Amino acid sequence: MQGTTQTPPQPDAYTPTDRTVPTRAAHKASYDRDLVHSILDEAYVCHLGFVRDGAPVVLPTLYARVGERLYVHGSTGSRPLREAGQADPGLPVCLTVTHVDGLVLARSAFHHSINYRSVVVHGVARDVTDPEEKRQALDALVDHVVPGRSSDSRPANRKELAATAVIRLDLDEVSAKVRTGGANDEPEDLTLPHWAGVVPLHKGYDTPVANHDLTPGIELPGYLTAR
Amino acid sequence: MQGTTQTPPQPDAYTPTDRTVPTRAAHKASYDRDLVHSILDEAYVCHLGFVRDGAPVVLPTLYARVGERLYVHGSTGSRPLREAGQADPGLPVCLTVTHVDGLVLARSAFHHSINYRSVVVHGVARDVTDPEEKRQALDALVDHVVPGRSSDSRPANRKELAATAVIRLDLDEVSAKVRTGGANDEPEDLTLPHWAGVVPLHKGYDTPVANHDLTPGIELPGYLTAR
Repeated sequence: MQGTTQTPPQPDAYTPTDRTVPTRAAHKASYDRDLVHSILDEAYVCHLGFVRDGAPVVLPTLYARVGERLYVHGSTGSRPLREAGQADPGLPVCLTVTHVDGLVLARSAFHHSINYRSVVVHGVARDVTDPEEKRQALDALVDHVVPGRSSDSRPANRKELAATAVIRLDLDEVSAKVRTGGANDEPEDLTLPHWAGVVPLHKGYDTPVANHDLTPGIELPGYLTAR
Repeated sequence: MQGTTQTPPQPDAYTPTDRTVPTRAAHKASYDRDLVHSILDEAYVCHLGFVRDGAPVVLPTLYARVGERLYVHGSTGSRPLREAGQADPGLPVCLTVTHVDGLVLARSAFHHSINYRSVVVHGVARDVTDPEEKRQALDALVDHVVPGRSSDSRPANRKELAATAVIRLDLDEVSAKVRTGGANDEPEDLTLPHWAGVVPLHKGYDTPVANHDLTPGIELPGYLTAR
């Protein structure tokens, strides 16, 4: 759309770096932007790693993607968010998202595996100080959990905004890793009398449970019944 | 069972440390041994954090619990496993397991949340060099994915054992964190016209898919049909 482009055109793939090229099973690695986005957008929780007193810390946390930026939020009192705000230029982090899609049963114990899709993001998380960006990030965090929900809830007020820290991690040094398909046994094991194949896993939603104090007459919104 | 006890009696709870007492939402933290075990035993994949060149790395990986020990395995060529074998006394790690149980929708954006159960283990991962412990750990890793499977597959041979590194992390500095229940809105928000409640998530198994090269006549084993 000539003349209306607001962001520079994105190449289709992230550029591999020393940290994003695996030492093994490199054929499972991908730098495809759409694949990375789809894996990130499907999960609810990421695992955020950072270093404290020289030792690693890994915490599960909500996140949201806005274009090529990831946002994580939390209390201004939480340690990683406080440290991201204080450190210059920010807090080195590794943010990882994983889906387990199936159990792979091989004839040999050695070739048992898991079908999965994962994304690993390396980078420096920075405190979001711009009020408009912070507001957009908080909306994205709510909409990441339930699309459309941010416009059907009370927005954060001044006190809540002040109590909430948001950090940003740019999608720059990123890789995906995917395993699909059946068991890969050694040729000499194929006739062993053990079953081999995949047990697919699935995730789903159960019927929503209304809060005990829900005002009578408030119906389940359409964005929930659609699931 | 007087006279037959092989391990010293375990207290019911892990001892909290500076690293396992959260700075906030401390009421969600638990050190209960049975709770920690149940959360660990239900997941397939953990997120293992370690430090490389001063920066955090978080990778998804299979694991298994044997009593108060966790085991992770991988290629002897994989970086964290190699580093655990070379470092003295081992590799400082943080191993985290998370289940997402529900989406919590509050009237206010601020009080949206996730129902979850997580376990965070801090410690030093050590290379398992004892052949018998290594063999037991590999069996446990297969049985963690499908209970009973290790006795219905070909055990690792000498070459496979040599290619596989196993590291051990003792359950010592451990905490669980659990959120359950509905939305906790501010009193003044209870009459807002927004639905509030929980969307429960569930995980399940689909019908197993036999490998394309499965020997005709091999039936699905009972430990899979039971699901």
